Amino acid sequence: MTDLLDQGAAAIASAVRAGRTSARAVAEAAIARVEAKNKAITAIVDFDPAEARAAADAVDARRKQGFDGPILGVPYTVKDTTWVQGRRVTNGSLLWKDFRPPRDAIAVERLKAAGGVFLGMTNTPEMAAKGHTENKVYGPSRHPMNPAVTPGGSSGGAAAALAAGFTPIALGTDGGGSGRRPASHCGVIGLKTSAGAIPSPFGFGGAYGPLYGVTAPMGRSVADARVAFEVMAGPDRRDPHSVALLDVPPPSSPRIALSPRLGLNVAVDPDVMAAFDSAIARLRAAGWRIEEGDVAWPEGTSETAFSAVNQAASALLYGERHAKDKDLFGDNVAGLIERGRTVPGTDVVEAFRFADACARTVAQFFTEYDYLLTPTTACVSWPVEQVYPKVIENREVGPRGHAVFTPLFNLALVPGISIPCGSGRDGLPVGLQIVAPRLHDRPLLAMAQRAEAALA
Amino acid sequence: MTDLLDQGAAAIASAVRAGRTSARAVAEAAIARVEAKNKAITAIVDFDPAEARAAADAVDARRKQGFDGPILGVPYTVKDTTWVQGRRVTNGSLLWKDFRPPRDAIAVERLKAAGGVFLGMTNTPEMAAKGHTENKVYGPSRHPMNPAVTPGGSSGGAAAALAAGFTPIALGTDGGGSGRRPASHCGVIGLKTSAGAIPSPFGFGGAYGPLYGVTAPMGRSVADARVAFEVMAGPDRRDPHSVALLDVPPPSSPRIALSPRLGLNVAVDPDVMAAFDSAIARLRAAGWRIEEGDVAWPEGTSETAFSAVNQAASALLYGERHAKDKDLFGDNVAGLIERGRTVPGTDVVEAFRFADACARTVAQFFTEYDYLLTPTTACVSWPVEQVYPKVIENREVGPRGHAVFTPLFNLALVPGISIPCGSGRDGLPVGLQIVAPRLHDRPLLAMAQRAEAALA
Repeated sequence: MTDLLDQGAAAIASAVRAGRTSARAVAEAAIARVEAKNKAITAIVDFDPAEARAAADAVDARRKQGFDGPILGVPYTVKDTTWVQGRRVTNGSLLWKDFRPPRDAIAVERLKAAGGVFLGMTNTPEMAAKGHTENKVYGPSRHPMNPAVTPGGSSGGAAAALAAGFTPIALGTDGGGSGRRPASHCGVIGLKTSAGAIPSPFGFGGAYGPLYGVTAPMGRSVADARVAFEVMAGPDRRDPHSVALLDVPPPSSPRIALSPRLGLNVAVDPDVMAAFDSAIARLRAAGWRIEEGDVAWPEGTSETAFSAVNQAASALLYGERHAKDKDLFGDNVAGLIERGRTVPGTDVVEAFRFADACARTVAQFFTEYDYLLTPTTACVSWPVEQVYPKVIENREVGPRGHAVFTPLFNLALVPGISIPCGSGRDGLPVGLQIVAPRLHDRPLLAMAQRAEAALA
Repeated sequence: MTDLLDQGAAAIASAVRAGRTSARAVAEAAIARVEAKNKAITAIVDFDPAEARAAADAVDARRKQGFDGPILGVPYTVKDTTWVQGRRVTNGSLLWKDFRPPRDAIAVERLKAAGGVFLGMTNTPEMAAKGHTENKVYGPSRHPMNPAVTPGGSSGGAAAALAAGFTPIALGTDGGGSGRRPASHCGVIGLKTSAGAIPSPFGFGGAYGPLYGVTAPMGRSVADARVAFEVMAGPDRRDPHSVALLDVPPPSSPRIALSPRLGLNVAVDPDVMAAFDSAIARLRAAGWRIEEGDVAWPEGTSETAFSAVNQAASALLYGERHAKDKDLFGDNVAGLIERGRTVPGTDVVEAFRFADACARTVAQFFTEYDYLLTPTTACVSWPVEQVYPKVIENREVGPRGHAVFTPLFNLALVPGISIPCGSGRDGLPVGLQIVAPRLHDRPLLAMAQRAEAALA
């Protein structure tokens, strides 16, 4: 059973479908792993084995009556930002420390309808607002390979739970790299879906607007992330931003661009760059034709160019509560609120216009190329006591210096995926990011599977 | 030839295709009408008959070599907000009084590729920012039925050109009703397309953001608007916001809601309401099952709830020019700029969040209904000297009081169409608005054709 849990979603569903095992037996194996390993890493934060057993028993009972689904009996986790009816869902904030949502998010509805078994909620930084998973409700998550370092964030709990082998798939989110970067740090798969590919109208909402923050299927393999994606993707009348994937085949001779520093001369630690370069060399050896090509970013592009929106939104949503009770908030969100109180409206409009300029620029880039390859992060995981690394490649960097490779693709609305591509300092994982045009998620996943095989 | 011009795009294309007439002969008929009637109404503002003749001759020459297209030889106009390479395109503003765009908008590219013949640019208010077509470059447009009244706006020149019979189709825009309302006032068809249905990455941009202001196919009949829509719709890799229409058939027993005051108790002039009620009675007599049903709008809903975005964007984009030279701007845009200088960022974020709440609410409404029927405007056209009517149904109203029925559906991202449904004061046309779920433009057009036939 333990082995089956490591063979992935398709193998589990197949075994349950054939009656070779039961959803309940799979759930017991997952529960045993959580009970053995979670305390050291705080990956899962809301955990009720009785509920997981009941969900698995219900799947088994329905299977006997003819029910089937693509993730039949497959356990999954949900990030603590996403509504699961009746569970404790805190958004990493004391504001919701006792909140139990009145309904499921559509993505969760679909995981349940596809035969999945909910295992638990995974940890997130406060309001998913930083790349380091720690909050005032549950404290920090830790890396399964080394509890002294962070799994990154904001889907840090989800990535750590995958790396620890609790489940084959996880539901994360990605508003600026939150799905891709922790996946990179933990050696698993994180897919930032195209804006609109997975409906998400029910939940906390947040600072980013409905297009930039998306549901992120995560997995222990690209195949697993792909199964989770297919279960959750597709338009729903309740979400006006949900749209259909484009019906395009993967290109037969893909035009692949390589942008090791994003065309912005960002700092990248040498160990990360060495692993990335080695991966590119292996892909070339496998026959990939890859040429250097940078996006011609708009003037003023940086990882902080969209900050005014987050700041003003934080002040709008939480300013009053913060004025009354500062202790409800961590330093990071408190800082956003403080800055947001005085941000002029013109700065907010400018940030949204910058986002659109990014999207148009990346779209233009993808008239020349089909895929873009970059590192996923600028450094490997860092000590759990630090919110962010202050020095990368001997250059001082700000709070988003480690995260430079991901957020511009959120603003561009396009899909991106992180797959493991080697290791750096202390054997910690390094990720390769592949980016594709908007709504080309399926060709991207096909390409990521090819890359995963070539790098294995 | 004159008659053929009134028979619509399909008849013209068919006659040109069969060699029964030439694109050149059609263009000559259109040119003759412009030369006879345009001076009184200022519908077309940039007009070069030599260029129209050359474009028509080119279509004829290509046809002889086997070229075909759905609007073969059909003349069309383009609103003076939309880029046509090499033409004078002013956006209704002295800022661009001598601007000639370096390229075509994608919608224009597609009209040309489909065999259309560009006839001229149509008038718009300054930056398309009000429902009354008048600016400092070209002065006011006038209504073809009565030059003492306005054709409305902002696609007022396009609607007047259609009503005057210059062309069967026109390219307008709709950022808050700019395509639907002037169509209503002029007795023609205006389609506000779903956000993303027609790509539009090249042009002036503007205050609204890429989802709210859309290209609006307009026509003298629903069939003509439909042909224009099909020519221009469909995703393009260069526009990250462009998406595919949903592949849905028209519902066999449509659930149709009637909302004569939008559920917001808005003021509507009795002549408009009488024409609207009569049209609904005729649709019911034709077998339509229609029930009363209002959208459950979010708290704070009004036609001005999105204003902070327009104000801040105007200040951002034009604040410096305005500070240096006030005379470059009309009163309306100057007012937006002035107010935008002090709008706080939190108000802008709140406006965007309101837009999203609108979109979700309308999406939820469309899980219960397939179509929504409302009047298009709260009053018929008013004297051309007035920017907006100050009294409707004996109630004092603000600048957007006449326009209350349209902008919320821009924020909702959904398609809506105005078709003629009778007449009011002084015999001026009244329009019926039909709204459908996002990316259901094709079912909407099918329903509008049924309504047009029933009301004929």
